[in-house]
Amino acid sequence: MKLARFAHAGQIKYGVVEEENGAEYLRELPNGPFGELRPAGGRIPMAQVMLLAPCTPTKIVAVGLNYVDHARELGMAIPEEPVIFMKPLSTLVGPGGLIIYPAMSRRVEYEGELAIVIKDTTRDVRPEEAKAHILGYSCYNDVTARDLQQKDVQWTRAKSFNTFGPLGPIITDEIDPDNAPITLLVNGQKRQSSSTNNFIFPVARVVSFISQIMPLYPGDVIATGTPPGVGELKPGDEVEVFIEGIGRLRNQVAA
Amino acid sequence: MKLARFAHAGQIKYGVVEEENGAEYLRELPNGPFGELRPAGGRIPMAQVMLLAPCTPTKIVAVGLNYVDHARELGMAIPEEPVIFMKPLSTLVGPGGLIIYPAMSRRVEYEGELAIVIKDTTRDVRPEEAKAHILGYSCYNDVTARDLQQKDVQWTRAKSFNTFGPLGPIITDEIDPDNAPITLLVNGQKRQSSSTNNFIFPVARVVSFISQIMPLYPGDVIATGTPPGVGELKPGDEVEVFIEGIGRLRNQVAA
Repeated sequence: MKLARFAHAGQIKYGVVEEENGAEYLRELPNGPFGELRPAGGRIPMAQVMLLAPCTPTKIVAVGLNYVDHARELGMAIPEEPVIFMKPLSTLVGPGGLIIYPAMSRRVEYEGELAIVIKDTTRDVRPEEAKAHILGYSCYNDVTARDLQQKDVQWTRAKSFNTFGPLGPIITDEIDPDNAPITLLVNGQKRQSSSTNNFIFPVARVVSFISQIMPLYPGDVIATGTPPGVGELKPGDEVEVFIEGIGRLRNQVAA
Repeated sequence: MKLARFAHAGQIKYGVVEEENGAEYLRELPNGPFGELRPAGGRIPMAQVMLLAPCTPTKIVAVGLNYVDHARELGMAIPEEPVIFMKPLSTLVGPGGLIIYPAMSRRVEYEGELAIVIKDTTRDVRPEEAKAHILGYSCYNDVTARDLQQKDVQWTRAKSFNTFGPLGPIITDEIDPDNAPITLLVNGQKRQSSSTNNFIFPVARVVSFISQIMPLYPGDVIATGTPPGVGELKPGDEVEVFIEGIGRLRNQVAA
């Protein structure tokens, strides 16, 4: 199932994405994307809606170094446990949303990631139970002011500016999160290319670990870390995170 | 004005604390603690209520090293800018709430702090405008799993366990936040004693700084950092943060 959140006819709605003859449509989910999914009403052509960030989390938790190949690139030891940090909700923007370059930074970078979206209240679950609590997966860009990350040592400021968390375009449970190729492009040029089969901590382990620290709620987002190849974004750049089966999360850096 | 949030007659209410002949009463604020304060109804004796965490934030932001005397104690340089981190809402407990010792940690410590509570939406304000956006001040305990803080380098996990953020007992705007003595006691013995006049970044500077990174909303909490003397908490300990004019924030570590 592919889930979207979108603006249509002056309202914000959740819906299921359907496809026929290569064209995509939405059918509304009047009761939202949690619990039993009951599409209602007619088909809405994708061209008539504006896709929004596909969920409204109560919090955004992110994992640091989580790709074997990225750890190798940085010459760092493989961590024993995930390192986590949080991003405020004001970082969230949807597909097509602008990334605003903050006045405090002189070096903003992209980090393409797979996002986990939580389905229901999840506390203290074991890895083998974790996937039952996942609504689906989306693309995420953990935008980071690299100069401030290095200066502060703590990552929170560097990753917390408004619009520093594009998410989208949709949420799907139809991919294999442990074996998903992930690509990031800047102005159409490939900059990151890896697969989640390089995860140090697979999604089940990540959800289990975080659920032992804090409860997770429906719509909460977990960003799972970025592969090798992080680099600079400049005003006017277009950045795109692509995961097959989810789609393209495209955002422009405001000029 | 002293503001409280409390349970009374099966409901959760906001109220103003009044005092007469040494006895404390509450008068309900049916429209809540933001905007014009209009107490209504009769006096409720303090003994008839259970005080709760005095606000319901959308986020909790905290400042690292912020006392000159604590920096000296640690032999650390005075930072040029505040270092910030976030704590999830699941850390919040009120006066009297239990602090739960997490299974992941072998070393839990207290950190007594002054908390700032935000009054209205606050974005990108200058220090000289910041105090107009503060509802008042409360006592805070930034409970920390010190072993995990050292292991992770990033502070988020260590400070994010359920119940790791006692706040209370009330919110007041009647103290001088730049000159408030602050004390922390464990089982009645003084462990921390300083004054906010040792702040490296006074409250106006802290609010201004954070508001340039992320918007702050009514009820959001900013923990302003801890003075020298941090130390261990053991199951069964009673820990108390005391700031004159705010009162005593007492919590027990669950045995």
